[in-house]
Amino acid sequence: MQKQITYGDILNLEKNQRIALINSVAGFKCLNLVGTVNLAGQENLAVFNSVVHIGANPPLLGLVVRPDSVERHSLSNILETAAFTLNHVHEGIYKQAHQSSARYPREVSEFEACGLSPEYKDDFQAPFVKESRIQIGLELKERVDISINGSIVLVGEIKVIYLPEDCWKQDGYVDLEKAGSLTILGLDSYHRTQKLARLTYAKPDKKLEQKD
Amino acid sequence: MQKQITYGDILNLEKNQRIALINSVAGFKCLNLVGTVNLAGQENLAVFNSVVHIGANPPLLGLVVRPDSVERHSLSNILETAAFTLNHVHEGIYKQAHQSSARYPREVSEFEACGLSPEYKDDFQAPFVKESRIQIGLELKERVDISINGSIVLVGEIKVIYLPEDCWKQDGYVDLEKAGSLTILGLDSYHRTQKLARLTYAKPDKKLEQKD
Repeated sequence: MQKQITYGDILNLEKNQRIALINSVAGFKCLNLVGTVNLAGQENLAVFNSVVHIGANPPLLGLVVRPDSVERHSLSNILETAAFTLNHVHEGIYKQAHQSSARYPREVSEFEACGLSPEYKDDFQAPFVKESRIQIGLELKERVDISINGSIVLVGEIKVIYLPEDCWKQDGYVDLEKAGSLTILGLDSYHRTQKLARLTYAKPDKKLEQKD
Repeated sequence: MQKQITYGDILNLEKNQRIALINSVAGFKCLNLVGTVNLAGQENLAVFNSVVHIGANPPLLGLVVRPDSVERHSLSNILETAAFTLNHVHEGIYKQAHQSSARYPREVSEFEACGLSPEYKDDFQAPFVKESRIQIGLELKERVDISINGSIVLVGEIKVIYLPEDCWKQDGYVDLEKAGSLTILGLDSYHRTQKLARLTYAKPDKKLEQKD
């Protein structure tokens, strides 16, 4: 049976039900650990499901942040240093990744509290997650404020990517399934993936075919 | 072996390689068909991988759009009517969904060209995709421009959700795996999912447990 949920129904839900509904209803999301450090050297790690593609040239990703949430330490560090990392989550570390969403005090490093290791390399200011197989270093280029609810889109330019060599295909595509990267549904549901197919570039009068 | 890809390497890639890399490297994405119609009744359907959570109260989702892409018809219709729908993609319709990314002329309805059916209901202005099991109707509330590359974030408020009754859990979570919703990697790779676990709310001194 199909169920209809109206705007009024949504507003009448208990707060945690509404949060669970709206976070899950749009689809499976990008799962990343965001690594940052402030100018005093205090590290922070937090799990995010709100990374979005902004553009390829220059290479830009957006990170949507709520200023009043557990994400606020990540936000203040990024605004302070303009540097952050995105680190993929695989089966071996998804419980540690989820634990980073707990509200730790400012002076606690979630790396240590959750059993993950900060990794500094090639002079990039923010820490990567050593246990992640795909690591991306970004520089903050633009802050965009959403007035309706105070959310912020941080637009970062990709400065460096580390990935397993055998997961990067000739045509540019990164085989994240081979790398074991997970996807998240809502705030707490972790999923592996199973590829159906890659499809050829769509054109109006051409039949789609399966790639590799 | 770990490979490093620098900012310079990215800029030196062939254009399609760069697009494939930057679209896939951040993770698996939300997969939705966006349904719109203009004031003259011309329908449009396009597949998007750029939906992001903005907030739960009010219930807001963001859609990142490039003004110079195949997405431009969706954009102009949304700006004209302030209404759009998000429709999930399952195994039975992913090839049709992918076909909607072809550059059809303005006067062609991608519904018809791709073999999907527009569905109008409950006075919502924009068409839903009848074959989709999860359908969301949204009203445009805010347009946010990203100056660095001209991308636009369209912030929509959820007005109505249709979903299979047995996929909506007591705690608000929508079981999209049960609904057969797929995730997309990059621009052309379609994946089903397999749940590892839902985890309990994380707190600093509490052990995580598996939910249902």
